This record gives sequence, structure tokens and C-alpha cells, in this order.
Amino acid sequence: MRRRAVLPHVVVDDVRGEAMPAADVAWMLAALALVIVMFPGLALFYGGMVGTKNTLNMMMMVMGALAVTSVIYVLYGHGFVVGDSIGGLGILGDPMDHLGFAGIYEDPGDGGLADPFWFAFYILFAGITIAIVASGAVGRMKFGAWLVFAALYVTFVYLPLGHWVFAADDEDLGTVGGWMRNDLGLHDYAGGTAVHMASGLGALALALVLGPRRESATRPHNVPLILLGSGLLWMGWFGFNGGTAGGANFLAQYVYLTTLLAACAGMLGFCLVEKIRNGKPTTLGAASGLVSGLVAITPSADAVEAIGALVVGFAGGAIVCWACTWKTKLGIDESLDAFAVHGMGGIVGSVCVILIGYAGSPAGIEGILFGGSWDIVWREFVGIGVTCAYAFGVTWIIAKVLDKTIGLRADEEDEYSGMDVAMHQETAYDARERV
Amino acid sequence: MRRRAVLPHVVVDDVRGEAMPAADVAWMLAALALVIVMFPGLALFYGGMVGTKNTLNMMMMVMGALAVTSVIYVLYGHGFVVGDSIGGLGILGDPMDHLGFAGIYEDPGDGGLADPFWFAFYILFAGITIAIVASGAVGRMKFGAWLVFAALYVTFVYLPLGHWVFAADDEDLGTVGGWMRNDLGLHDYAGGTAVHMASGLGALALALVLGPRRESATRPHNVPLILLGSGLLWMGWFGFNGGTAGGANFLAQYVYLTTLLAACAGMLGFCLVEKIRNGKPTTLGAASGLVSGLVAITPSADAVEAIGALVVGFAGGAIVCWACTWKTKLGIDESLDAFAVHGMGGIVGSVCVILIGYAGSPAGIEGILFGGSWDIVWREFVGIGVTCAYAFGVTWIIAKVLDKTIGLRADEEDEYSGMDVAMHQETAYDARERV
Amino acid sequence: MRRRAVLPHVVVDDVRGEAMPAADVAWMLAALALVIVMFPGLALFYGGMVGTKNTLNMMMMVMGALAVTSVIYVLYGHGFVVGDSIGGLGILGDPMDHLGFAGIYEDPGDGGLADPFWFAFYILFAGITIAIVASGAVGRMKFGAWLVFAALYVTFVYLPLGHWVFAADDEDLGTVGGWMRNDLGLHDYAGGTAVHMASGLGALALALVLGPRRESATRPHNVPLILLGSGLLWMGWFGFNGGTAGGANFLAQYVYLTTLLAACAGMLGFCLVEKIRNGKPTTLGAASGLVSGLVAITPSADAVEAIGALVVGFAGGAIVCWACTWKTKLGIDESLDAFAVHGMGGIVGSVCVILIGYAGSPAGIEGILFGGSWDIVWREFVGIGVTCAYAFGVTWIIAKVLDKTIGLRADEEDEYSGMDVAMHQETAYDARERV
Repeated sequence: MRRRAVLPHVVVDDVRGEAMPAADVAWMLAALALVIVMFPGLALFYGGMVGTKNTLNMMMMVMGALAVTSVIYVLYGHGFVVGDSIGGLGILGDPMDHLGFAGIYEDPGDGGLADPFWFAFYILFAGITIAIVASGAVGRMKFGAWLVFAALYVTFVYLPLGHWVFAADDEDLGTVGGWMRNDLGLHDYAGGTAVHMASGLGALALALVLGPRRESATRPHNVPLILLGSGLLWMGWFGFNGGTAGGANFLAQYVYLTTLLAACAGMLGFCLVEKIRNGKPTTLGAASGLVSGLVAITPSADAVEAIGALVVGFAGGAIVCWACTWKTKLGIDESLDAFAVHGMGGIVGSVCVILIGYAGSPAGIEGILFGGSWDIVWREFVGIGVTCAYAFGVTWIIAKVLDKTIGLRADEEDEYSGMDVAMHQETAYDARERV
Repeated sequence: MRRRAVLPHVVVDDVRGEAMPAADVAWMLAALALVIVMFPGLALFYGGMVGTKNTLNMMMMVMGALAVTSVIYVLYGHGFVVGDSIGGLGILGDPMDHLGFAGIYEDPGDGGLADPFWFAFYILFAGITIAIVASGAVGRMKFGAWLVFAALYVTFVYLPLGHWVFAADDEDLGTVGGWMRNDLGLHDYAGGTAVHMASGLGALALALVLGPRRESATRPHNVPLILLGSGLLWMGWFGFNGGTAGGANFLAQYVYLTTLLAACAGMLGFCLVEKIRNGKPTTLGAASGLVSGLVAITPSADAVEAIGALVVGFAGGAIVCWACTWKTKLGIDESLDAFAVHGMGGIVGSVCVILIGYAGSPAGIEGILFGGSWDIVWREFVGIGVTCAYAFGVTWIIAKVLDKTIGLRADEEDEYSGMDVAMHQETAYDARERV
Repeated sequence: MRRRAVLPHVVVDDVRGEAMPAADVAWMLAALALVIVMFPGLALFYGGMVGTKNTLNMMMMVMGALAVTSVIYVLYGHGFVVGDSIGGLGILGDPMDHLGFAGIYEDPGDGGLADPFWFAFYILFAGITIAIVASGAVGRMKFGAWLVFAALYVTFVYLPLGHWVFAADDEDLGTVGGWMRNDLGLHDYAGGTAVHMASGLGALALALVLGPRRESATRPHNVPLILLGSGLLWMGWFGFNGGTAGGANFLAQYVYLTTLLAACAGMLGFCLVEKIRNGKPTTLGAASGLVSGLVAITPSADAVEAIGALVVGFAGGAIVCWACTWKTKLGIDESLDAFAVHGMGGIVGSVCVILIGYAGSPAGIEGILFGGSWDIVWREFVGIGVTCAYAFGVTWIIAKVLDKTIGLRADEEDEYSGMDVAMHQETAYDARERV
């Protein structure tokens, strides 16, 4: 059986007078290449934030997470997300629908987007989600254990969540999608739940199971790397949000504007809170605010207008800045603030849909501040609540089970010498090596 | 009232037999994402050139400039550039035409490029212009004052210039555009005037008002960052020049070739002058030459053929290299040579249109060296002269007024300790932070 | 005479029901911009691997190679590759067909890809090939001699090989292409031979003529730069492989999936061999494995399915890791392993086509392990053998002739002080320059 894997918003194409599938292909090819750059981007963003003794390990966790994900996806992953729901329950897709070694690769002949593309695109969604979780494992996790953890996280946390949020019912094919998207009617444009809340809460759970480092850094070792990383993430986000539109359509253009504005406003929001609190806006803050704004606009990019996008980004940046202080107070070593940036940022964006959704936007949701129906409120909160609880709980169980079996935590000695030497027998920089 | 915001060259689409608006959307979405990478690119390019005590401040000026611009654009900027000229004078667009909060976001339903896209694209043009100006403020300007200055520069320098150069008369809509483009008949492909001369002269004016630093660097702290920055700028330039074609058309392909060749020849021209003058070509020179070639081809990309593009780039690189020595002789601390690279580079490119324009190119202008009419000469020189005088003069006034009121210059103590610590309470690198 | 320069796979477009040339333009514009980023990517990849005294020289060799190539291509290069074969022999294209200064730049008027685009795209193919060869010249070659060598390599090695592999017979135009592609029937998707084997063997020959450095590094000076470089190369590879499809078609989507999977599996393969051999997987290994997987999939991207792509990448990474030890044993200072990564990687990919080609793939080749015909075996081996022998032999002759005439090798003193200071009068980093 062949079935087209579709993103939730592909239906928008129907609005267009005439079909131009090849134009959709043209844009989506570019979009995927942009999403690719998010991986080196995240590697630099995270790698620059830690000290020089853990830089490479951070980067390896990001890249290794993607490598593991790609194998899982080929072996069994894709169908779990986009396949016909098993038993029509909306809980899990049928993995047999898109097995990597099945002959699903024929040219559909319509000149449009085909299975191999969606396969690749979805791998990157899954890969970036688990890569973000590495924030919870800085400087103290065995590398082999990380790869095993990553495989289990993708399998048990991401794949079900992806199905719930991304798989649409398809009347033409007679297939059933995920419950959040179809039964609950959650509005989540490009993965505020399945990508950002799932990774943010996953990082928190992993950090709690691992426990804090014996000594921990207070300052990043290379801020220009962080800024560069955030810039590459930003570029990639246009592929991520723009590509979620499923083609070269009006929706893609619309979310481009909101994505740009939210990122800019995220910088302003984060830096303003820094300015008020500490007297100075920092570059680390601007980079973090940029990413926070992008996270916040991810679920809401098609639901707010220009001023609304500035508000979403500003609120995202400001609230994430405030949330970044939590971990210190609670003594949780979720070092790179995935929980604050991705968890809280995703929640802010989803709540903004409720509050300031703009009826004239592609999503057509009217926020309650503008007199919209309260009907969406409980839907969004159920979506947020279930996602957060599920991601946190299942990640915690996975981490705990691994900790009791193969062991997650590196030796004390390795921790002091740093993960780069301990896990990879190398150092990030060698200025003495002048030859 | 709704009106499509159009770039000057969109008319080229009409040449094409059949309209394929979705293909234009596909390309332009990619183009905008490429332009995004110019911001981290410029941040690295500038950040690598200064010393380690001012690196982050440099990056923050670039990113902050874009953040401020985005807010201005949403609040009132876009209409000033692309709106119907107030009173039909060609001086300033009507800001009411494109207010960010007005309902201009409906899907036009034709499957083509729509308002939200152009809005986002134009924000980036404005943002990169003011970001370049930061070259004039290295290591001595209060960060808050920079943000205020940036807002005023965009408002009073860029927005009018953008209208003059980018807004085309539209007979179908009955709207009037800017005087340089329509009345003067200036040929400026993608912003040699409004972007590059405006920023180069603006940087010079700002540097003059600020005065030189008390002590100044002679060498960049991180040349690989500079080369990386120039590489990202280069990639982005294909989006900038290619996107100015307004779609996936022949013009875009044409300017791709000239943009590539001019960048390569810019490296050769700059390095050859270095070789002759100092005996060695440098990496800083190659990176600067690359950007200089790109600046020079910006106004001329559609007006020269392949050999011509090599000449434009080579001349751009060589003349900019020579111009870089001016500031030292004059004692002006326009530290990162925005005046030489963007000001002189833009002038070289505009003059090349006059001299070696190729009649068979999309612009169809025959250079006077090939027997073309002298008619274009005065048009280009008026365009260049007015742009330079306006940008220099108005920037100087803005800077002077701010200097007398809020004060532009950082304290002497802050200057010695460096802007990174003084303005942002952080340092770019912390190699001791090994945790 | 005008003739469209076409890539070998453009014929795939015919499969599509209706022609959408503008969509192809949209994608290819994006693809070229992605390929551009391979140059700064390779500059960082190589620059990070060497010591700090040769970092900039490495980057300058990469960028300089492209600059020289662009001039050669405009003056005479393009026709040698894509022109009608001289005498119909399939040995060399007619340079008069695409002289840079001939009037080949008219808009064909069909809204599709035109000469200027292909011109630019092919320049980048040639440029990246010679840039990779710089691996054989680390830390001991005069910079001027490198530029001369680069010009000769492109002329005598790349241009003929490019014709053999890339130029397709065109019955409509009545033109004859290269012998490998048309007479031999070699399957090489995107340049495993003309780009990767040619550069890998060229680097080996150059390293042999130059002889080893007097003292040589064992460790890279900046691993994050290497990882960033590999990430940018990866992004660019989607433009390279995806762009070779010639448009926004099914083939482009297909090779996207295989390119993604092979890169991921390349990391796994390389790191697994490291783990087995040394006990630890390294970041340098992950970056090298990523690139190795990409090299291996270049000739085979359209010929294997998803599991096959994982196998190609894994084999590429693992075998390259093993091949990297050769040079040390043989005392050859081919410092950055272009021979292992690009030469061996390319061979692995080509052999995989023979072994595990998938009949249902776009290439439609059935591997001999799946019961396919042995007919392809000798074709691939002739292609591999001739390419390697030709590239090695001609490069060796060029290098030897230059060595005896202008001299290739830098002075002993320069070698000890480092090429950065000796050739470019600058250093990569200056942390003391705090101003």
C-alpha cells in the first residue's frame, strides 16, 4: 500500500487556483537544506555555551542524535508518525505503512512532492527534537549511553507525539491521523508541542535523573560561536516553519513574516529583561532571545498578524529570560536551558494563539482578547498539558531505566577532566599545535 | 486600500511566455532565507575584524540594528518606501498604505508573491543597510545610543532613499514611485545607492561625529571568523541580488553569473593591489575583496556581461583596497572600512554601468566605452551625488543632535576596558572557563 | 551558435507530465547558492584541521582556487566541458561553443534554465574540485605557485574529465558528448569520478611531488571549525546532488533522501571504526565520516534505496577511516586526507552501485548482489581506473614541471615560521590585540 505522507497544512494548497506541484517541490527542496543547517547551528549554539572541556561532546551529542534517528526512521520510525492510526485510535501510526525497505519510492508521476522527500523532512524534525534534549546532559553523560537514550527517546517520546500532532485524517485515503490534531483540534502550526515542549521537558527529566554536575560553569567559553549558531538556527527556521506550509504558497509567505518579526522581538524581549534585571543586555541574551522568539512563533506562526508576531516574540524572549533563573534556584543542572527556551517558549507561543489569535490569519482563530470563543482554550491547555506530562514522564522513565541498567553518568574523574578528553580523546582547541 | 508591493524588476516577469507565480514564490522564499544569513555573516565579518574587547559589541550592533528596524517597519516604515508618493512628488511614500496593523494580509488568491513576503524582504534590506553603518562606531559608542541612532537613521536616511530608488511608478494602480527611479531614470539594480552608498557614507559621517578612539587596533583578532563571515555574506548576496529579480526568471539567472564572477574577481583585484603594495596578499584582503566585488556588482549585475562582471569585481576590489588607506591618512576612525567597501564599491559599480554597460544585457544599457549614449552619465552621477550627499548630511545631523542631547560616546574608562564588558558585561572568549 | 548546456540528468524532466521550467529555475537558483557555501565550508574544514601557523594559507588556497577557476572558465573553460566534442571523439568539448565573451546570454524565452545559470553552476563544480586538491599542499607550497598549479590542474585535469563524465550526447542538437558517459556508459550520478576521484588522486600526486613537511602536525587546532565546515559542506551537498537533478523533480527528492542517510551513516561508520581501533569516537572522525558518506553517495545517490544509502554511507565512512592510516604508513604528507576521503570515498560509492544498485531507483541499475548483470562491472571499473590514472598522472606531470621551473616548495625558513606569516603576512588569531 502506498500513501502520501502529508504535513498538516498541505490542504492550504487547495486554495490556490491552479496546482503547481513542481513549484512546491522547488521550495521544499530549499527548505530541507535550510533545516539541515540547524544541526551544525545547534551544535555551535550548545558547544559555545559550555566550557572548553565539554565543547566537542556537546557537538557530538547533537550530531550523534541525528545519526541514530536516521537509522531508526528507516527501520521503523516513519510509519509510526504518518501511518494510518492503528485501530483508528489516533495513538500510533502503523509502522508497516512506511518501512524504509519497502518499495515506496516510485515516482508518483504528478510532478509534486513524493515520499522520499517527506521521509527525509520528517527525519530532520525528529532529529532536531532529540538533539535539543542534549541540553540536559552537559558534561556528565556517557556518550554511548546518550546514543541509546536518544534511540529510546525518539521511539517512545517523539514518534507517538509526532503522530498525535502531525498526522492528519485523510478522507480521500480513508486513513486516520493523530488524536491531538484531529479529535482534540489542537492548533500547533509547526511543532510547538511535539518538537519544542517535548524536547524542553525531556531535557528537564534527563537532567533530574542525571543529577547536577559536581562543578558547573557560569560562563560560555565562546560567545561568537553561540551567536553564529543562533544565526544558522534562524536561517534553518525559515525552512522549518516555511516548509511546514507544504509548498510555495501564501501560507509560507505569511509565516515568513511572522517568523522574522518574532525572532527580532525575541531579542528585544530577552535583552530588555536583562537590562532591567542586571543593567546590561548581553550577546548570550540576544542569541537566546532570538531562539526563544523563534520557538514561541513555531506553534503560532499562522495564527497572528504582524503586531501579534512582535508580541509573541517579545513575550517569548522576556518570559524565557525570566524562566532561565528557575533552574539555578531549584539546583537543576539543565545547563543550556532547553526547558526554558523550548519548553516555556513553546508554551508561550501556544498560549498566545489563545490570547491574540487573529481571525484574518490563515489559521483563522480569534483570540479571546479579541472576543474569540473560549472553546480553543481547553483544547490548547489539554494539548500543552498532555504533551508536557507525556514527554516528561516517559523521558524520566527511559532515563531511570537506563541509569539502573547500563548507567548514564560518567565517572567522577571523567567529569573533572571533561567529556571531550574522556569520551572522545580530543580537545576542541590546540593553540600550541602550530605545525 | 490594498496594493502589491513590488520590486523594480518584477516587470521582467512579463517577458516570460506564461506566468508561473508559484515558481516565483518558491525561489523568493529561498532568497529571503539566504538574505537572513547576511546578518550573522556581517556580525562575524565585523566581529572578527576588531579586537577581543569589542567583538561582542560589534555583533550586538548588527543584530540590534535589525531588531530595531523590524519594529519601525511594522509601525510605519514599509509605506514610506513602497507606498504611493505623497502628493505625487516622488519624495516619500504614503505610510498609511502599508501600516503593519492594517489588514493587508489577505491571500491575493493568485498563487503568487503577496504582501507579507515583500514586507519581510524589505525589512531585511533596511536592516542590512543600518547594520553596515556600525563600522563607524567601533569601540566607542554607547549601546543604547546606537539603537536610538539606528532607529533615526532608518527613518530619515533609509526610508526616503528606499522610496527614491526602489518604488516604481505603477500605471495599472495609478500610483507614483520615487523620483530617482522614475524621473531621473537612475539605473541601480539592487541598491548600490540606497543600501551601499547610504551605509558607507553614513558610517563615515557617524565616525566623524564620534571622533577616533583613544587607542585603536591595527589587526583583527580572528581572521577565520572574517572569512566565514564573508562567505555567509556571499551566499546571502545570491538571495539579495537574485531575489531582486522578483522571481524565478532569466534575470535572476543572469545576475547569478555576474554576482559569482564579480566576487571572484574582487578577491583577485584586492589581493593584487596588496601584493604590489606590500608584497603579500592577505586573507583579510581576500575577504574584503570578495565583499567589495559583491558591492560593486550590486548596482550593475543586470547591466554587464561575463567579462564585464570580472572587470567590475576586479575594479571594485582594487579601488576599495586603495581607498582603505584614505582613512588612515585622514585620521578618521571609520574602522571597518564601510566607506571604502560599501561607499566606494557602490560608486565603482555604478560608474561601471556607465562605462561598460552591455547592450545585450537585461538592463540593455550601452556603456560609453562601447559607443553608448552619454545621456546616462549625468543620471548616474546625479544619483550617486545626491545619495552620497543626502546620506552623509542627514546622518551627520542625526549623530550631532544625538551627541548634543543623549550623548553618543562611551566613557573613557569604558573605552579602555572595551565595549564588551562595559556595555554587555561579558567577554567573547573565556578559555579558562573549562567547566 | 547557441546551445543549452545540460547536466546529464536533465532528461528526467521529460518524465513529468507537464513542463514547469520556472519551477526548475526556482530550485536551481537555491541549489547554486547552497553550493556556494561549500567554499567557506571547505575553507573551515581544512583550516581547522591544520595548525594555527598554516590556517589562513589553507583558506586562501581554497578561495584562490575558485577565483582562478572563474577566470579560466570565462576565458575558455566552459566549452571544453559542455561543448560539442571536437571531431566527435568524446575527448574534449569545443571551447568556441561557450566562450565567455560571445553573445550567449540572450533570454531563451521559455522561462526555463538558461546558459548564464549553467555557466555559473559549472564554475562551482570545477572550483570545488581544485579546492579539494589543496589537501596535498599543506604548509609547504608557495602561494603563487599554487595559483598557477590550480589553473593548470583545472585546464588539463578537470576540463577533460568533466567532458568525459558530464557531457551527454544530444540527438536534438546533433552534438556529441564525452566518451565515459556516452560510449562507456559509466554510471556516475554527480561526479564521483570527475570531482572526487580526480581531486583525491590529484592531491596524492601533488603531495608526492612536494614531499612531506619537515615537521608535521598530529592534531587539528580548532575542531569546532572543522565540524562547522563539515556542516556547511553538508548543506551545500544538497545543492550539489539535488541540483544535479537539473530541476524540481522526483529525482531531486530521491537523492535528497539518500544524501541525508549516507551522511548520517558515514558518521556512524567512521566513528565505529575509531571506537574499535582506538576505543573512542572523535569529533574529527564524525566530521570526516559525514563528508566521507557524502562523497560515497555522490556517484550512487540515484541508484540505491534507503537501506542501500545507509550501507553506502556506512561503508564510505568505515573504509575512509581505515584508508586514513595509509598515508602515515607510507610517509606521504597528504595531510588532510583528500585521497582517503574523496578518492577512496568516491571509489566506494561507485563500487556500491555495482554491488547494491536497486532496480527500482531512478538509475534503474540492478546490483550484482541482487542478481543484476555483470555488464556494469567492467564499465565502472574502467571509469574508476581511467579517472584515477589520468588524474594522478597528469597532476603529477603538472606538479613536476612546475617544480622544475618556477619551483613549488616554500623555503625551509618559511615552512618553520608557517605559511600564514610567510605567504600572507598575517596570523589567524591575535588574542593580544584587544583594542
